[in-house]
Amino acid sequence: MSKTEYQGQAGELRARLVQAQYRLKDADFAAIIVIAGNDNFGRNDLIHVLHEWMDPRFLETRSFGHPTDEEKERPPFWRYWRALPPKGRIGIFYGSWVRRPLMDRIDGLIDDAALDDAIREINNFEKLLVDDGTLLFKFWLHLSEEELGKRLEAVRGDPQTASQVSRRDVDLLEGYDRALAVYERFVGGTSTAEAPWMIVDGSHAGTRNLTIGRTVLDALRRRLDAGQTPPCTPSADSAAEPSTAPKMSGEGRGLLDALDLTQTLPKGEYQKRLERYQAKLHGLGQTAFEQGLTSILLFEGWDASGKGGAIRRIARTLDPRDYRMIAIAAPNDEERARHYLWRFWRHIPPRGRIRLFDRSWYGRVLVERVEGFAAEHEWRRAYKEIRDFEEQLVRHGILLLKFWLHIDPQEQLRRFRQRERTPFKQHKMSEEDYRNRRKWDAYEAAAEEMVRRTGTDAAPWHLIEANDKRHARVKVLRIYCQELERRLA
Amino acid sequence: MSKTEYQGQAGELRARLVQAQYRLKDADFAAIIVIAGNDNFGRNDLIHVLHEWMDPRFLETRSFGHPTDEEKERPPFWRYWRALPPKGRIGIFYGSWVRRPLMDRIDGLIDDAALDDAIREINNFEKLLVDDGTLLFKFWLHLSEEELGKRLEAVRGDPQTASQVSRRDVDLLEGYDRALAVYERFVGGTSTAEAPWMIVDGSHAGTRNLTIGRTVLDALRRRLDAGQTPPCTPSADSAAEPSTAPKMSGEGRGLLDALDLTQTLPKGEYQKRLERYQAKLHGLGQTAFEQGLTSILLFEGWDASGKGGAIRRIARTLDPRDYRMIAIAAPNDEERARHYLWRFWRHIPPRGRIRLFDRSWYGRVLVERVEGFAAEHEWRRAYKEIRDFEEQLVRHGILLLKFWLHIDPQEQLRRFRQRERTPFKQHKMSEEDYRNRRKWDAYEAAAEEMVRRTGTDAAPWHLIEANDKRHARVKVLRIYCQELERRLA
Repeated sequence: MSKTEYQGQAGELRARLVQAQYRLKDADFAAIIVIAGNDNFGRNDLIHVLHEWMDPRFLETRSFGHPTDEEKERPPFWRYWRALPPKGRIGIFYGSWVRRPLMDRIDGLIDDAALDDAIREINNFEKLLVDDGTLLFKFWLHLSEEELGKRLEAVRGDPQTASQVSRRDVDLLEGYDRALAVYERFVGGTSTAEAPWMIVDGSHAGTRNLTIGRTVLDALRRRLDAGQTPPCTPSADSAAEPSTAPKMSGEGRGLLDALDLTQTLPKGEYQKRLERYQAKLHGLGQTAFEQGLTSILLFEGWDASGKGGAIRRIARTLDPRDYRMIAIAAPNDEERARHYLWRFWRHIPPRGRIRLFDRSWYGRVLVERVEGFAAEHEWRRAYKEIRDFEEQLVRHGILLLKFWLHIDPQEQLRRFRQRERTPFKQHKMSEEDYRNRRKWDAYEAAAEEMVRRTGTDAAPWHLIEANDKRHARVKVLRIYCQELERRLA
Repeated sequence: MSKTEYQGQAGELRARLVQAQYRLKDADFAAIIVIAGNDNFGRNDLIHVLHEWMDPRFLETRSFGHPTDEEKERPPFWRYWRALPPKGRIGIFYGSWVRRPLMDRIDGLIDDAALDDAIREINNFEKLLVDDGTLLFKFWLHLSEEELGKRLEAVRGDPQTASQVSRRDVDLLEGYDRALAVYERFVGGTSTAEAPWMIVDGSHAGTRNLTIGRTVLDALRRRLDAGQTPPCTPSADSAAEPSTAPKMSGEGRGLLDALDLTQTLPKGEYQKRLERYQAKLHGLGQTAFEQGLTSILLFEGWDASGKGGAIRRIARTLDPRDYRMIAIAAPNDEERARHYLWRFWRHIPPRGRIRLFDRSWYGRVLVERVEGFAAEHEWRRAYKEIRDFEEQLVRHGILLLKFWLHIDPQEQLRRFRQRERTPFKQHKMSEEDYRNRRKWDAYEAAAEEMVRRTGTDAAPWHLIEANDKRHARVKVLRIYCQELERRLA
């Protein structure tokens, strides 16, 4: 292809890409372009070209080097979550979630089994993005051994670029076969139906650029033409999802309606235990901070089931520097423009800190399900997404405790009436509370399924009989103390 | 006061505080409660009480220990900006901007002059918050030497709290007089008309809590009753603001209309110089990254003055990992809920990185002024706020370059027409562009005043004659190269 020919084609492509970007701006999805491969130098050039071809105002390029300490203190994917582009934008990612496991395997720091674990995590993450409507491109820029050798020589030969050749580049050429085997395992493992790799021959820059530009353009247009309807994957995977056995703590042996709500704790005994556990928690909280044990406690349950009161009894004992309360209400527009889990990833605390969630990501399978804010295929796939999310937290060493505070409809009504009579609680009441009450059965079914599908060994649900507030508060405190003790032992 | 009496009063106060919080939720301002003083133990107790009295869903407590590396790589106030509560919320801050200069002075790490510098910065910051409508409370919890001694003894005597007494607490008691002198200088210096300290006797916890709770309640109510009107400070300070002499680089000697727009660069010469400066910038960019020199370049100028093109000519030479382009459009709702500078503080890069702003914080005194999005007292005080902001960037060692790309109305019209004929530029054009054109004089007056009031020694404006795009692009590149060379020498 002659230079003129290339420029002609590039000019046309550029105009169309910018047009597509302007249509994307108002669309309900984001695009992500992952660039990887063994052609580091071509990659930089490609990114420049993409920046020139597209309107940089709607384009974000994110590269990832060594994690910062704020990143190191969170699960590995936190840094990628925080960099996700909002709907309407294109994000170019490189040195991304792809790089670390590849390099670690090539360097022999991890074995094949660990690489396969990483592949599984990547596939989960990418599936989640694609399910959410993200248009995901994965380009693998590849050079044969011969081409890679030529490329290194050329870069080295130019005084302007010579310094860019690192020891690592040379190693990768010398150990070409070994690296290739890792690439093949990795690319094969992460080429899924949802997010296949496109292998691009890196040896001809012009062809490479045009191929990639056209692929992006075509897919963008196809999606834009298809309208705003999200990719309604008939939830084969979620329908087929095996029913996981419920995990419950303490007394409760059945599901929600099997809980013994008659349990009470007399006031005198309550005061005694409350003080005992609070004193204990105070000390454990300090130790946890010193040892860098992070806690995330989330509270779900009926309106007026006493979530706030239970949270306050815990918070009271902690150093205010160490904890933060996160009350989950409607998402704001930065949050709405991304995957529903994004707003929770934002709140993952640094090492040794505590977050107390008053409602949580489970809203997806509770209120969003019941009120129809999420489509059925959306809340159905959320069970697995949530399990994956929580698994990441737990694997990072975070103590994750999930509490469901259970009351019966009569108790709720009693509390609503009482709130209406208590000056500093009146504001908590609205017509909506009564409206939600009328959907008790739907909410109960959702809660039952949630407990069944998301109670895992790593992150079991703690079901709390909460008709008696004193019983509930002490039980929550006791469980948190026990779990801290177990972990700090 | 008896315990029953306290509980009665506290109960009443609590109900009223929660009511006020619910009103605040929909109001157009945030409240910030700064807690400082020499009573560390009382402080923790106070924060617990405030958490119990108020609805924690609309309350955020932020404490600040050692800065993280992400924080260390930015100007010192970055961490406070990122923690500012949105409108409708209350933020409790401690260990905040107050603590570090106080402790450093007490420890003898800084002298009085440096403490006074810190005081000036704090006053600027607090004034900016208050001017923006923030209801700012500053409580200084104080204990006399005798009371402090008693408090330490009590904390030490209780096995549950004994471990909380640190070497530092003991030092502060032993060096009470010395610390007191520092406190007095600091509290005196930071007690301004906008943000006075309220000194609270820490010796009686009950009285302390009620006093502080009532102060917060009364001020909240007064402000809420006054309606949504922002505190319209008659801009005495901005009217009295001395006209700063314009700083200009290169050829331009006059103000905007004195620029010689006839300057051109023939194509052949342009190509040569472009290549030369781009090659130079490529190398300088690498060195800057290695040496940790951060750059922020901002581009302002008329519509179609070539900002994007100039930015792309720079970006093209840089490693895509090192820079990010920030296109400033309308703020989103997280941004609208805070001071207008908040959205720019978000984009301050870490060490060694580059940010290219296509439009910037100067929108406040340009489009927001002309279109009436900001009231006169708001854009008038913005000059000083912006100077203070930029001074912080520069003092942190960031290379800040501000470019105004200047064209005349005839050239703009020519470019609009051309854009309408160019496929990949058509989308840039809208009716709004022609509307803005009709306000040329108002925009020019705003630009003139901006250049005059915000061109400082530390952060001068570079006025670019941009009727000829080639001349403009090369000039911008040249200035960036020169400034990098000067700083890297």
